Amino acid sequence: MKLHTYFRSSAAYRVRIALNLKGLDYDSVPVHLLRDGGQQLLPAYRKLNPSALVPTLDDDGALIGQSLAIIEYLDEMHRQSPLLPATALGRARVRMLALTVAADTHPLGNLRVLKYLTGEMGQSDQVKLAWQQHWLATGMAALEALLTGSSDTGIYCHGDTPTVADCCLVPQVFSAQRFGVDTTPYPAIMRIHAACSALPAFQRAHPAQQPDAE
Amino acid sequence: MKLHTYFRSSAAYRVRIALNLKGLDYDSVPVHLLRDGGQQLLPAYRKLNPSALVPTLDDDGALIGQSLAIIEYLDEMHRQSPLLPATALGRARVRMLALTVAADTHPLGNLRVLKYLTGEMGQSDQVKLAWQQHWLATGMAALEALLTGSSDTGIYCHGDTPTVADCCLVPQVFSAQRFGVDTTPYPAIMRIHAACSALPAFQRAHPAQQPDAE
Repeated sequence: MKLHTYFRSSAAYRVRIALNLKGLDYDSVPVHLLRDGGQQLLPAYRKLNPSALVPTLDDDGALIGQSLAIIEYLDEMHRQSPLLPATALGRARVRMLALTVAADTHPLGNLRVLKYLTGEMGQSDQVKLAWQQHWLATGMAALEALLTGSSDTGIYCHGDTPTVADCCLVPQVFSAQRFGVDTTPYPAIMRIHAACSALPAFQRAHPAQQPDAE
Repeated sequence: MKLHTYFRSSAAYRVRIALNLKGLDYDSVPVHLLRDGGQQLLPAYRKLNPSALVPTLDDDGALIGQSLAIIEYLDEMHRQSPLLPATALGRARVRMLALTVAADTHPLGNLRVLKYLTGEMGQSDQVKLAWQQHWLATGMAALEALLTGSSDTGIYCHGDTPTVADCCLVPQVFSAQRFGVDTTPYPAIMRIHAACSALPAFQRAHPAQQPDAE
C-alpha cells in the first residue's frame, strides 16, 4: 500500500494513525502542498485524486481519497484492531465524533481556504489567524461537549480502545496547538490526547516523524 | 423516529432522502435556523446536539448528529434498500463521493460561516456570494471529475441504484442552483440529478415539500 501524504496535513495524519493502529505497512509518497505551486494541484496528482487534496490511498492500484473513507475501507479489509465499535449505536457515535472534526472543523482551516482569504479576499494574516482560531475553538468546544455529555467516553473517545474518533481528535489538537488556540477549556479532549500520545501508533504518525518533515 | 430538521438545510435534506429511500416513517421537528437568533443555538437544542447544527436523529431517545453518521446508522439498522454497495471498494468509493460534498464543499457554505464573513469579518453580501459560488463550483468540479473518471458511475453515482452519494449530490445541486452557480460544466452531476429527481423519495425530501417550508 502507498499513502500519498503531507507531513502536516491533518487528514493524512488521521490515516497514518489508522494504518499504525492496525499494524499495516505502507510506503509514504510525499506530496508537498507548498512546493511547485502546490504539488497536489499538478495534473499528475489530480489523476490520482481529482479533488486535489491529500491523502490518497493506493491499494494495489485502487485509489481512494477522503480520510474517513480510507479509514473505513482499511477497517473493513483488515479485521485486526477494529477502529469502529461493535454496535450500530456505538458506530454512529464514533462517526458523529469523527465528522465533528473532519466535516465541521478541519475543512474551514484547509490550506486552500486560507489562501482564498489572503488571496482573492485580500485579508491580512491577522484576520486569517483569527479565522483559524475561531473555527478550531468552535470545533473543540463541540467535541468537548459531546465527550463530556456521554458515559460512553472512556480512556479514549469511545470506551477503552482507540477508534476513528481518536484518529481525528489527535491531529485536531495538533492544529489547535500550532495555531495558538488555548486548550485549557477542553480537559476531556486533552486527557484523551494524552492517552493517545502515549501509544507508539500515534507517536509514529506524528508530523515530526514523517520522512517529509521539515 | 424524529428528525430535527430545517427545510433548506443541505445536511437535513440528505437524511430525509435516505429515510424516504429506505421507506422509513419519521416525524419532522422543525428547527428554524433564522428565528429566535437561530433556534439551533438555544440551550434546548444544544442538549440534543452540542454542535448546534441540524439535523439530529432521535431514534427512541438515542440522539445522533452528523448527516453521514445518521445515514450509515439507518443503513445498518434497516437492511432494506441498502444505501452502500456490497463490496468494500464500492463502499469506499461511495463514501469518498459523499465526503467530497459533505466535508469538502458544504461546510464552507454553512450559515454560521456566512454569518462570520459578513459579521466578524465585515464583508459585503457580494463578497459572501462570490465565496459561496467559488466553493460550490470547486466542489462540483471535483465531484464531476470523480464521476466521469470511473466506470462505476451508472444511472446514479455508483451503479444503477441510489446510494449515500446520491443523497449528498442532490442537495448540493439545490444549493448550487439557489446561489446562481452555472451547472452546465457538470453534465454528469446534472444527469444523475435528473435521474434522482424522478424518484418520489427524492421529491418528497425536497425543501419545498417540508412542513416548515416558507
